[in-house]
Amino acid sequence: MNFTLDPNYVVGFVDGEGCFSITVNKHHGRLSEVRLIFAIELEESDEEILEKIAETIGCGKIYRLVYKNHPKWKPHCKLKVGSFKDIDEKVIPFFTRYPLQAKKKLQFARFCRVARLIKEKKHLGGDNIKEILRIRKTE
Amino acid sequence: MNFTLDPNYVVGFVDGEGCFSITVNKHHGRLSEVRLIFAIELEESDEEILEKIAETIGCGKIYRLVYKNHPKWKPHCKLKVGSFKDIDEKVIPFFTRYPLQAKKKLQFARFCRVARLIKEKKHLGGDNIKEILRIRKTE
Repeated sequence: MNFTLDPNYVVGFVDGEGCFSITVNKHHGRLSEVRLIFAIELEESDEEILEKIAETIGCGKIYRLVYKNHPKWKPHCKLKVGSFKDIDEKVIPFFTRYPLQAKKKLQFARFCRVARLIKEKKHLGGDNIKEILRIRKTE
Repeated sequence: MNFTLDPNYVVGFVDGEGCFSITVNKHHGRLSEVRLIFAIELEESDEEILEKIAETIGCGKIYRLVYKNHPKWKPHCKLKVGSFKDIDEKVIPFFTRYPLQAKKKLQFARFCRVARLIKEKKHLGGDNIKEILRIRKTE
């Protein structure tokens, strides 16, 4: 396989700067939707490396972030993978084949547990969502 | 050569979290001493990866940082290389052989320029130090 960047480089970068997050949204006051997001946020001047990381992993969109309420903050850019299909078929296989080495591997393990629940449709309904919140809290 | 971590992993990690700094100290109000420091600072819970990075590069000491004035901040740990010999013989050769890929490569290029001046003893005296301050400012 021909990668834009060495996969180990991407693993090192993500161990430092990446984020595997489990979000639970509320709808009309009820816990309703579980989403997985993989993201890396950097200063905008480093956008090129995000493009190369997206190419290497094989997915992800890049967004520009401007903080209107914080005019002194530099504009940022964010590589974000929010599609469950991409997370399931690209992100998780990539970091399973090339494992994280720092404490972020624990965050990734929780992320994978929740991905499995979503695949098995065990992410809907109050009890399932409470279980996911429990996983998210574990160290 | 047998590395603790894949060198490309270290490059990715450092592109995100590392810092190649050029410091100029004042003594009795005069610019007097130029120092190069390579460092990575993380939360203390990630100390193990710093130890592995130090082993891979072949130098560096790890320090614990406690922010007494900021009791809510988590304790941090820092891998620091401040010895010019280690910078010259370990850090610079490592990142020359395994090049940085993100914008940190510009910071590293300035760091290397100053290292050359130090080797040639062109880092002492007001004019030389002003030249180093000029290099430090360049983008």
